[in-house]
Amino acid sequence: MKRLYGGIDLGGSKIESVVCDEEGRVLASERRPTPVESAGALLEGLAASLRAACATAGARPEELEGVGLGAPGPLDAGSGLLLEPPNLGGLRDLPLAEPLARMLGAPCFLENDANAAALGEFTFGAGRGVRDGVYITLSTGIGGGLVLDGRLYRGASGTAGEVGHMILEPEGPLCGCGRRGCWEALASGLALAREARAALERLPAGPEREWWLARLSGRLEAVTARDVFAAEAAGVAPGPELVEREAGWVGVGMANLIQLLAPRRIVVGGGLSRAGERLLGRARARALELAFASATRELEIVPAELEAPGAVGAAVVAMRRLRGEA
Amino acid sequence: MKRLYGGIDLGGSKIESVVCDEEGRVLASERRPTPVESAGALLEGLAASLRAACATAGARPEELEGVGLGAPGPLDAGSGLLLEPPNLGGLRDLPLAEPLARMLGAPCFLENDANAAALGEFTFGAGRGVRDGVYITLSTGIGGGLVLDGRLYRGASGTAGEVGHMILEPEGPLCGCGRRGCWEALASGLALAREARAALERLPAGPEREWWLARLSGRLEAVTARDVFAAEAAGVAPGPELVEREAGWVGVGMANLIQLLAPRRIVVGGGLSRAGERLLGRARARALELAFASATRELEIVPAELEAPGAVGAAVVAMRRLRGEA
Repeated sequence: MKRLYGGIDLGGSKIESVVCDEEGRVLASERRPTPVESAGALLEGLAASLRAACATAGARPEELEGVGLGAPGPLDAGSGLLLEPPNLGGLRDLPLAEPLARMLGAPCFLENDANAAALGEFTFGAGRGVRDGVYITLSTGIGGGLVLDGRLYRGASGTAGEVGHMILEPEGPLCGCGRRGCWEALASGLALAREARAALERLPAGPEREWWLARLSGRLEAVTARDVFAAEAAGVAPGPELVEREAGWVGVGMANLIQLLAPRRIVVGGGLSRAGERLLGRARARALELAFASATRELEIVPAELEAPGAVGAAVVAMRRLRGEA
Repeated sequence: MKRLYGGIDLGGSKIESVVCDEEGRVLASERRPTPVESAGALLEGLAASLRAACATAGARPEELEGVGLGAPGPLDAGSGLLLEPPNLGGLRDLPLAEPLARMLGAPCFLENDANAAALGEFTFGAGRGVRDGVYITLSTGIGGGLVLDGRLYRGASGTAGEVGHMILEPEGPLCGCGRRGCWEALASGLALAREARAALERLPAGPEREWWLARLSGRLEAVTARDVFAAEAAGVAPGPELVEREAGWVGVGMANLIQLLAPRRIVVGGGLSRAGERLLGRARARALELAFASATRELEIVPAELEAPGAVGAAVVAMRRLRGEA
């Protein structure tokens, strides 16, 4: 019988679970909102989501070789503690791996969600076959994971790969982390929406303003990154210039990763990556312009390939830990 | 008999050679200006410098186990080619390792100078015993080398560790590399001197201006980083504010390295590091303020310890390559 693994991606708003085989083929997947009333409800939600995926796959949870759980940091991968759980009202140092293992009857392993997604993409997705790469998730925030010499690189403190908090403009906009000018504050989905709000406030009356008012039901302040890409596709100002600015900042951050790490491949996932080449093409051009030619000759900057990089990556975490690998 | 190794640090203006044992003890060292008339003169200078160090150490070059040569990049460590030799009038793809090996009668290995210095410091200097660290050289320019999981990390293209060309301010001052706002353009010795020249032009007549005119023999435009640190020590404007600015930028760059790589130790060498805690103390404080607390709990930011990190590091390159290590 095939070896099966479970993978769970715990996000602030949703839980996504998969059951997959050791070639990364997804046999079943499941999504549900993240219960945030209590630690107990969160654990129950995680277990129930994976059990549902198992039922679809025709397997019992205790038949899984292991289950990986990707969660937003900071966390302690070794001890399986979530240090600062999202949306759980300030609860700290929540044990996840051990109680989940008891509930499911299978070994559980915790990992930072961006690291898990990096392992997923560099094992079964757009980074497969590559030993040196960086995974970037462009989403509400910006996260990342480093795969160096074929292994996940966590650094001495276990926190390596916080690419979203490189500072690219020390006097720049305030970041959610409290600092100024982080990549995330300049190029995340939230940053793009912030820039759009400011630009829409300045947009004079006319057909373009009407387009926005119709799209946003009159609430210009409700604009999101998705609306900006829609405006760019429709040629409606300030969509094109906002996407241009966004791509430029994505490119600057990528250039720094290239200068420092000289990766073979950069894989870009997250909601913003769905804008495709309109964003990635320009960001790539900017990155290649800013990085040393000697570092970019064989470099590829490509979109993520997996349907659920976080959940499949979590399953890869389980596979690797069970083999004693990083 | 003890195994001996040679190390040569080829700089744009000087060659420094050492002979050392396998514990990194320097038995002899030698310095001379870099001959730049021709490729032949350069090779002769390199060989003569190492021969002189050998003579002092009482060893013949052919008795050395191997010789490492650190040189400014870009270069091809594998084939031993210097792709763009400094000050040799546009000469390219200069073979160094092989002809030098013939001249010395010992195997020769080429490495980027900052990588060599990183290996030197993380093997025998301020980084010894540490598996994950970054070496930074603050000098005319800014260079660096990454030691990850106990090995020199070169990345897929071999150019990893170009820390000086992280962009920290895309609209910032022009860098020698042609881009804007690189760390090197903001915080190198040349950048500090540039800021000092601009500040001295604005300095009103008075005792502080007199101090500078006396120190610089009337030529304010001849100011160097060293003069700035002297003014700071003497409390003469604009020394203190220039050092403050310099330390701030050094700290921003370090913070990015911490966010990305979560090193256990950052070792700082190069001419500017001789300013000691006056620079390093403030840079460290700024870096710790800007990086995640979870990444800095066990982090140390310390000055380099070796007298000649580049040359000793080059000898370490030879030791490691002969053992088949990276």
